[in-house]
Amino acid sequence: MTDTAAAASRPAPDPDGAKAVSERDRAHVFHSWSAQDQISPLPIAGAAGSRFWDYQGNSYLDFASQLVFTNIGHQHPKVVAAIQQQAARLCTIAPGFANDKRAEAAELIASYAPEGLNRVFFTNAGADAIENAVRMARIHTGRPKVLTAYRSYHGNTATAISLTGDPRRWANENAGHHDGNVAHFFGPYLYRSHFYATTPEQEAERALEHLEQTIAFEGPNTVAAILLETVVGTNGILIPPPGYLAGVRALCDKYGIVYIADEVMAGFGRTGAWFAIDHWNVSPDLIAFAKGVNSGYVPLGGVIISDAIHDTFRNQVFPGGLTYSGHPLACAAAVATIEVMREERIVENAAWLGEHVLGPTLRGFAQRHPSVGEVRGIGAFWALDLVKDKATREMLVPYGAGGPAAAPMNAVLAECKKHGVWPFTHFNRLQLTPPLNMTEAEALEGLTAIDKALSVADEYAAA
Amino acid sequence: MTDTAAAASRPAPDPDGAKAVSERDRAHVFHSWSAQDQISPLPIAGAAGSRFWDYQGNSYLDFASQLVFTNIGHQHPKVVAAIQQQAARLCTIAPGFANDKRAEAAELIASYAPEGLNRVFFTNAGADAIENAVRMARIHTGRPKVLTAYRSYHGNTATAISLTGDPRRWANENAGHHDGNVAHFFGPYLYRSHFYATTPEQEAERALEHLEQTIAFEGPNTVAAILLETVVGTNGILIPPPGYLAGVRALCDKYGIVYIADEVMAGFGRTGAWFAIDHWNVSPDLIAFAKGVNSGYVPLGGVIISDAIHDTFRNQVFPGGLTYSGHPLACAAAVATIEVMREERIVENAAWLGEHVLGPTLRGFAQRHPSVGEVRGIGAFWALDLVKDKATREMLVPYGAGGPAAAPMNAVLAECKKHGVWPFTHFNRLQLTPPLNMTEAEALEGLTAIDKALSVADEYAAA
Repeated sequence: MTDTAAAASRPAPDPDGAKAVSERDRAHVFHSWSAQDQISPLPIAGAAGSRFWDYQGNSYLDFASQLVFTNIGHQHPKVVAAIQQQAARLCTIAPGFANDKRAEAAELIASYAPEGLNRVFFTNAGADAIENAVRMARIHTGRPKVLTAYRSYHGNTATAISLTGDPRRWANENAGHHDGNVAHFFGPYLYRSHFYATTPEQEAERALEHLEQTIAFEGPNTVAAILLETVVGTNGILIPPPGYLAGVRALCDKYGIVYIADEVMAGFGRTGAWFAIDHWNVSPDLIAFAKGVNSGYVPLGGVIISDAIHDTFRNQVFPGGLTYSGHPLACAAAVATIEVMREERIVENAAWLGEHVLGPTLRGFAQRHPSVGEVRGIGAFWALDLVKDKATREMLVPYGAGGPAAAPMNAVLAECKKHGVWPFTHFNRLQLTPPLNMTEAEALEGLTAIDKALSVADEYAAA
Repeated sequence: MTDTAAAASRPAPDPDGAKAVSERDRAHVFHSWSAQDQISPLPIAGAAGSRFWDYQGNSYLDFASQLVFTNIGHQHPKVVAAIQQQAARLCTIAPGFANDKRAEAAELIASYAPEGLNRVFFTNAGADAIENAVRMARIHTGRPKVLTAYRSYHGNTATAISLTGDPRRWANENAGHHDGNVAHFFGPYLYRSHFYATTPEQEAERALEHLEQTIAFEGPNTVAAILLETVVGTNGILIPPPGYLAGVRALCDKYGIVYIADEVMAGFGRTGAWFAIDHWNVSPDLIAFAKGVNSGYVPLGGVIISDAIHDTFRNQVFPGGLTYSGHPLACAAAVATIEVMREERIVENAAWLGEHVLGPTLRGFAQRHPSVGEVRGIGAFWALDLVKDKATREMLVPYGAGGPAAAPMNAVLAECKKHGVWPFTHFNRLQLTPPLNMTEAEALEGLTAIDKALSVADEYAAA
């Protein structure tokens, strides 16, 4: 949808409508990851393309793609039409049957995966994709343990949250809601190197040495899988240095470990490639996906499975499943989304945006703003690592900060919203993950607003 | 849709279409709970009301409601229209916002729950509803352990599969894919009493004594929750004897334990009441739901939360969440489904079908068929417990039977399908769970076919 068309479809301000939705929401809706009395969820009246708007007449450029999932933007007319058509044909059918849209979606998805990954197990979203990938790896290897990185997020069900390497795991562990067969290690992050490294090559080499030592001390024959976000998402848009992922693949081969790539956030064009793993020419054994596969228009996730792991379950029952596996409406949305992405060269656009618009402009910010410590990104997947001091790299707010300690970031976020841009923040980072088909004009409009908002961060930073 | 309209919408036989779908399915789709080379998923061409059909011109009366979720049958025109309208308005928005359909669905769902359960946390399906209910209970109580029954199914993610009391748990435990804070007990099942009981009253009393002993030996101050399917679904349509659920409630109150009702299968009219728990006038602390909430037209599940548990998370962060929590398209389908169920008195129809058609007819089968050991059911939720011998009650096939041992049940199932009826089988049981709005004529047509199929079971049974 063009920007003009989007504007035309917006209703007049309706403060009474907002009040009614808010009251009902606060009376009956329990929200994710929140203290229920400390939130005031903004009622959203509509959305189109790269914008959404509230009931008060305010519109926002969606620089978060919601939770990094509306990769083709809101309300793409071809995907909406495909959902409507499939709804008229057949909304649902049990997973035990064969269904045309399910089969077509699986074939399309597998066609973009590395060679040798030909089967798709569909789930409802990312968490159950991770659960099922891990289940496959454990049974395939006969080993229980999964290694995964600190600074990661993998979902909210018991195994997925135990694999998560950020504070969302902690309260679950304290509550006993967890999978004990997990161990964490440190991944590469040169700007805040755990390994005292000064070059990307050194960071990769040392991070691999650390991983191999972790395998050695956990016991190689106890380790079923290594799970990695190909590009770490919420926890910082951490792009692996050259050689790291190939090194992980080599360690997996050396020790008979399954390599699971979590591409829930990074997949389906986010990095300017169909799968992020394509940038490094590495072939994992399992790929978990969700979000971008159909831009979240209908809940869908899944696992793409190597032939070797599929072979394990040719004559042995796979002990996992779910009522809505391969849901026809969700799969029809995936088929339409992938076709639209191909026809409109949306993945190529994400790469172009990163190279020619987002990257250069954001790197310019780092020159001018004392609060911008590092700019990292690829495609439509960017983070500004904000600092109090560029020399010491002290984070603008501490790791895991909430409440008053998070005030500087809250001020930056409020300033972005004031200027009509809705980004994502996590600890000390401003993360910019717009729809892959955002126009250059929209991107520049948003970046101008972010430039202004960074002045607020600068007030907390050493000049 | 009337039966005639459904028939009219069926396409001509298309064997080439079937072949194309099958080939694609076998090349790319990995199926739930299966050994991939030992299945031949039937391609389904369409569905309407209580029937679905393949590409060969065969139609089936859906006596399974797929996996017990299409409670309003297939392709209800009002729900299809509501999905199409919402798709045109707003397919998706992040869970952090307020949304009109999300709030409306939550209000409607809470309006049918027992008093004092006013908030809804939306998930994608049943497994993550269970995960989040358990997470809430653990944090609310500060205790780790969950007690649940053998003969149960609660989902496929790590905590949900660990809570499951049927063989689907075993391979997961062997693989290390599990939550260790779980203990199982025996629930009431008079026909195969674990407690040497001879009356429903005795079964209830002894099952409660067993449960209290289990609590005592697990340690009351370690137990966060007792989780029960209100009417056990896949594992046998086990209806609790009078007094049992009230006794569970009393034990929970006595020991400060959260009572979680799993109404994923039994809820939303399946038993002839909005929630199965209504039959016993008991109020749990948390209700997990999915399936019938929108007949699975769009994936949706959730937890209905008591005010006391909600209060725990007023100023403490709830450490769980998911990208598609309160998905607008799924919630719009729920609103339309619930309205249709109310307008068309579909829940009342389920009660009527059970009392006047399914119950009397099936009980008649028990008189005439030597293989029918017991008939159990309520509303549109029925099981035939098939036996080799009515005197000894020996199961027609053993618990957990697969392969050649399951041959008698496979023969019964094949005979049902031959006669145009698609039921659900589990071990030695034929389970009949049609759409709640199946017509009397359709129900009788299906029952006639099932009557014939039972003759096959009789061949394995002592006369």
